Amino acid sequence: MTDPRPTPATIAELKARKSVRMFTPDPVPDEVKADLLDCAFQAPTAGNQMLYTILDVQDQAIKDVLARTCDHQPFIAEAPVVLVFLADCRRWLDAYRLSGETAHEPGPADLLLAVADATIAAQNVVVAAHAYGLGSCYIGDIVEQREEVTALLNLDPYVFPAAMLVLGYPTEHQLRRTKPRRFPARAIVLTDRYRRLTPDELRDAYAARGEDFDRVVPATCRRKYESAFAAEMNRCVRDYLAPFLTPPLAG
Amino acid sequence: MTDPRPTPATIAELKARKSVRMFTPDPVPDEVKADLLDCAFQAPTAGNQMLYTILDVQDQAIKDVLARTCDHQPFIAEAPVVLVFLADCRRWLDAYRLSGETAHEPGPADLLLAVADATIAAQNVVVAAHAYGLGSCYIGDIVEQREEVTALLNLDPYVFPAAMLVLGYPTEHQLRRTKPRRFPARAIVLTDRYRRLTPDELRDAYAARGEDFDRVVPATCRRKYESAFAAEMNRCVRDYLAPFLTPPLAG
Repeated sequence: MTDPRPTPATIAELKARKSVRMFTPDPVPDEVKADLLDCAFQAPTAGNQMLYTILDVQDQAIKDVLARTCDHQPFIAEAPVVLVFLADCRRWLDAYRLSGETAHEPGPADLLLAVADATIAAQNVVVAAHAYGLGSCYIGDIVEQREEVTALLNLDPYVFPAAMLVLGYPTEHQLRRTKPRRFPARAIVLTDRYRRLTPDELRDAYAARGEDFDRVVPATCRRKYESAFAAEMNRCVRDYLAPFLTPPLAG
Repeated sequence: MTDPRPTPATIAELKARKSVRMFTPDPVPDEVKADLLDCAFQAPTAGNQMLYTILDVQDQAIKDVLARTCDHQPFIAEAPVVLVFLADCRRWLDAYRLSGETAHEPGPADLLLAVADATIAAQNVVVAAHAYGLGSCYIGDIVEQREEVTALLNLDPYVFPAAMLVLGYPTEHQLRRTKPRRFPARAIVLTDRYRRLTPDELRDAYAARGEDFDRVVPATCRRKYESAFAAEMNRCVRDYLAPFLTPPLAG
């Protein structure tokens, strides 16, 4: 017996949600923030382990530094709520050893499992926030300026900032902003096996969202993929990974 | 002006959702699957880039192999829908180069940004599926048996299986199953800065969900963290990362 029981409200909310980068000064009530965090906890988590720690950044001085280290985005400093989702390979390792077990130093899969846990929890916060009328934005730049950020947030070598969210009530301008069009399913979903897209298919993916391939793709490549912030992210993530790759990969 | 506009339905669904590993034989209608995928596409994605490919695994022979390679979990073969979320650092690299740009080989941050994109999209599918009355389960074991799985799914070296979901209508037994208790907020959320938990705090985290630390923690360590599947995951993820770490980390 199947009962599809569609709930249009939830589906519509998932589709309507768009990133919000400008917030009204209104604070987020404590009980709302607590409920957002509870939605994080209730997200799927590998073996019910919750392999993450959430930093609730309330100190304005820390927000101010993050606004600079995260590629100079001043709206971070003005966000009522700033949450950093740490993939945490330290906490339960401490528990295992406290219990008397000989537990291995975390490896790359231990890290990526924790990254998945942290990211899944973050996305539940995004969905819950939208349901509460709150806007949110992921800040991938949290991995930049590793030396300064790890000191600022007192990060352990076995703890990695997998995601950062800023949240608050959206300004009218942000509410009116059009959500950018996505690529079509035919560019994103493949049946059974991976394959590279053909040149025609790559061009079609951009055309399908109304973009001129020869103008948009070089601009995107330069502005995103070949940007200074992307180089900085690669430098830092390499160093974040190092403790999880001991012994190191063969040179 | 704030309008919290709480939508209890969505919040309640996020909290009620639990993993489902046994499915009725009922197929998932094509229009429902298409809508789940649309919810994935509409998830937040870095720079509107959609840095992932979703494999819709329909071939029963492939499902059968995945049920074996993913730590011998037969329910994978019986799931009506099997989706593999690939962090894809190949597709747009091909587009950049097609457009005439000199684009770098992907680095570790390019990979982790794509992992985040893929995982966020997967979690939107989980939430949407629950709204449709569908059960779902993440299969972290998709990263095991790398050699066989990359051949089976024709994975490119710049493509990483960030998440796998199995979906279908839950059996009555699964609907009745109690969702396992999570750790309390005080073990998971820290204000402003990271710190390691004290022995008392670690013990309290388990006690708060009704678990005996001295019995549960060694058992969890052996069954999960020190398991053969965890060792296999670490072996494989190390190899999956290698193409993204050229030149390799210093030895």
